[in-house]
Amino acid sequence: MYSHCEKGGWILGNKIDGCQAEYVRIPYADNSLYPIPAGSDEEALVMLSDILPTGFECGILNGQVKPGHTIAIVGAGPVGMAALLTAQFYSPAEIIMIDQDDSRLEVSKSFGATHTINSAKEGAINKVLELTNGKGVDTAIEAVGVPATFELCEEIIAAGGCIANVGVHGKSVALHLEKLWDRNITITTRLVDTVTTPLLIKTVQSKKIEPQKLITHRFKLDQMLQAYDTFGNAAQQKALKILIENV
Amino acid sequence: MYSHCEKGGWILGNKIDGCQAEYVRIPYADNSLYPIPAGSDEEALVMLSDILPTGFECGILNGQVKPGHTIAIVGAGPVGMAALLTAQFYSPAEIIMIDQDDSRLEVSKSFGATHTINSAKEGAINKVLELTNGKGVDTAIEAVGVPATFELCEEIIAAGGCIANVGVHGKSVALHLEKLWDRNITITTRLVDTVTTPLLIKTVQSKKIEPQKLITHRFKLDQMLQAYDTFGNAAQQKALKILIENV
Amino acid sequence: MYSHCEKGGWILGNKIDGCQAEYVRIPYADNSLYPIPAGSDEEALVMLSDILPTGFECGILNGQVKPGHTIAIVGAGPVGMAALLTAQFYSPAEIIMIDQDDSRLEVSKSFGATHTINSAKEGAINKVLELTNGKGVDTAIEAVGVPATFELCEEIIAAGGCIANVGVHGKSVALHLEKLWDRNITITTRLVDTVTTPLLIKTVQSKKIEPQKLITHRFKLDQMLQAYDTFGNAAQQKALKILIENV
Amino acid sequence: MYSHCEKGGWILGNKIDGCQAEYVRIPYADNSLYPIPAGSDEEALVMLSDILPTGFECGILNGQVKPGHTIAIVGAGPVGMAALLTAQFYSPAEIIMIDQDDSRLEVSKSFGATHTINSAKEGAINKVLELTNGKGVDTAIEAVGVPATFELCEEIIAAGGCIANVGVHGKSVALHLEKLWDRNITITTRLVDTVTTPLLIKTVQSKKIEPQKLITHRFKLDQMLQAYDTFGNAAQQKALKILIENV
Repeated sequence: MYSHCEKGGWILGNKIDGCQAEYVRIPYADNSLYPIPAGSDEEALVMLSDILPTGFECGILNGQVKPGHTIAIVGAGPVGMAALLTAQFYSPAEIIMIDQDDSRLEVSKSFGATHTINSAKEGAINKVLELTNGKGVDTAIEAVGVPATFELCEEIIAAGGCIANVGVHGKSVALHLEKLWDRNITITTRLVDTVTTPLLIKTVQSKKIEPQKLITHRFKLDQMLQAYDTFGNAAQQKALKILIENV
Repeated sequence: MYSHCEKGGWILGNKIDGCQAEYVRIPYADNSLYPIPAGSDEEALVMLSDILPTGFECGILNGQVKPGHTIAIVGAGPVGMAALLTAQFYSPAEIIMIDQDDSRLEVSKSFGATHTINSAKEGAINKVLELTNGKGVDTAIEAVGVPATFELCEEIIAAGGCIANVGVHGKSVALHLEKLWDRNITITTRLVDTVTTPLLIKTVQSKKIEPQKLITHRFKLDQMLQAYDTFGNAAQQKALKILIENV
Repeated sequence: MYSHCEKGGWILGNKIDGCQAEYVRIPYADNSLYPIPAGSDEEALVMLSDILPTGFECGILNGQVKPGHTIAIVGAGPVGMAALLTAQFYSPAEIIMIDQDDSRLEVSKSFGATHTINSAKEGAINKVLELTNGKGVDTAIEAVGVPATFELCEEIIAAGGCIANVGVHGKSVALHLEKLWDRNITITTRLVDTVTTPLLIKTVQSKKIEPQKLITHRFKLDQMLQAYDTFGNAAQQKALKILIENV
Repeated sequence: MYSHCEKGGWILGNKIDGCQAEYVRIPYADNSLYPIPAGSDEEALVMLSDILPTGFECGILNGQVKPGHTIAIVGAGPVGMAALLTAQFYSPAEIIMIDQDDSRLEVSKSFGATHTINSAKEGAINKVLELTNGKGVDTAIEAVGVPATFELCEEIIAAGGCIANVGVHGKSVALHLEKLWDRNITITTRLVDTVTTPLLIKTVQSKKIEPQKLITHRFKLDQMLQAYDTFGNAAQQKALKILIENV
């Protein structure tokens, strides 16, 4: 569990300065760096530094996504999209994307969502239950980080299902054990461990996934402030991930 | 997942009359009855009808108890004791029993608890953290069913650990995702499926477990009301399980 | 483990007459029949009676196929093709198909194989090692049933890999433990349990797999003998699966 | 999989000189050394350097030993005894020890074997089948390394069971796929990875296991040649493990 390594864990950009620099010192580098295979699409691999393993490990692996399953992803931001892309490694039958932004929902369809729900416009709970014959979903992935979206997951999870929390939360949520105590559900939290990086590199190499799709904007290193502005207004700018080029 | 079988599930004593009768009709009997091996201790096997598989499946299996682990069981009532007995199948290093009743805690020691904490008398959180060098426990089993005990589990769970809910809850609890979102924890709920009954029968046959220890009182069938009174005052009567004899 | 159920198991066409009849009695029907969802492609579902779950359970699940893995399937007959189709549920990076029939290898490419090797024409061991930088494959699926093909799997399996036997064998094979004892490999055998039928129905419903592709020939019920002749000369007739229509 | 690390793996005493020296250089020490907890029984911990993790990882974990299971261990030498001790972490119902040396079998009883079979004196296959009502064992652990003992495991394994190879083999064995292809069995090999060392340290600390029991002889460093003679005649000398003391 690298994420909770007593001397390591989440260091770059957290306990020490991060990588927005020309040179960077990487602590414990022999356990955390991977060689880039010859001929790789480096832009695709940039997405593997954080967002792909986060969506995959915290959402898809913790959510136990399996062939034929029905899953819901709540939040169509970058990490929700990373979950959407990597969910497809396991061939779920249905992927329902839930967000309040029609534009992001539209993008999610082109990334493989089979159904979309704009929860600002229609009742997400009822819609999910309708799509699943009243059973709910096998996996619900929370990729927002507020009480309302987590509690939505509690309402739509099927008996025996998994709620995989990916969002960063600032306050507590109500866990309705009075309804869930006998429902055989699993709830997980996780800080990404990046243990799946080698696997993800192979899937990129073999074109099973094209994470460069997540890049919506590109800036030069000296346009950094503009890049932050764009990402700060991500919804309005229709931004998912922003690439900083050093040339 | 028998517990959520669309036509089956928890039927006896719930959807139809239960077994406190001389004759009983068992629906779906070919999937739910097991032959009693010759020479069995039938009193031990009575404990396998509900309480042992509940403690084992909902607590120990869901809690992923492993050799060398440190676990805490919150609630030293009958189902907590069943969890205590079956936890030992997996040789955890430490089993911390937490309750407010000294008498039950004393019994738990004779059942294999390595530490006991009376949470009415001392701070359970601090005591658990002290016993675990500040790390918390690998598995916390909630066997009471009220918000305070579930939230205690949230406070004492180690990074990477499992909270296995066994208690029947009447209201929601606060899930502190603001603290737990990055702690790689798993929370589970479950209505017992009784899929482990064949395994449990074998462990009783081979004396790996002696569930008859849970029987503290015995009554005849015509003393049923007295039996209910005793169980209704379980703490005061120092009652764990009560056996009704038909002779 | 339905396949080894003491009173059930492989009954139809084995212990009692099979389904090549207008009416058939199905023992233990409540555990072995599934409703056909409205609007299904029934020809696709015919493939789920035996060949798809066999390739999937005995080959892909036992072989622990994972995203990014490299797998080899030895034998491009119907069950090898079923393994090829269902392997793709888990997004392996490379699927190497090995057979002695160019025509079947060609078909396997259209079904998703990324590499093919005609083992009658080139050294399969060297070719696999060349494709895998000398490491061998993560999963080798034996779908023929003779010593030479099983021993080929032993030669091409990577450290930590799985050999999943699907073939029906008539004699013993040499297990080279003098080479394999320290290679951390797993070898599995299995008679299909059909526990994955509900999952497979969902993947057919959602078009994640199109097993009707395996049907190469169609006959009426009164052309049964001709159908058997064709299947008896499957390689020459380029036959994979033959559908008998009752109309 | 440390055992197959491209730059690491089994180095000491294999690729470079081992530890029979006053000073030793440990390559990749930050991934392979563990601090000894204060107050530990160091003699017990010596057993954790190789034999305990070998018996546990290659035998018990690979063999998927579970509560209530019936297991057989073929070979009552040191590594078979290590498997016997660590098997009990999972509370199997029956542990059948098979060897040709009555003295070792007698020791195995004091270590927890529930049945012993001297295969030089009675038919081991028939005896195991008799003890298991004709079903065979859930796990068979091969801890000798010759064809006869591996093939014995093939004869006594139950449908759905695991054969975990621990022995170091010098030649191939006959794998009877003509009998086993439809028996849903798993066969594993493994070079110890020592990933379970932290777990094993905890079980020693908490007295769940007393591996110092395996030490039958003690010598000083300057009696090394005598120690080798004793271990070279282990059966005759009734030797399991020999401790070299540096004082």
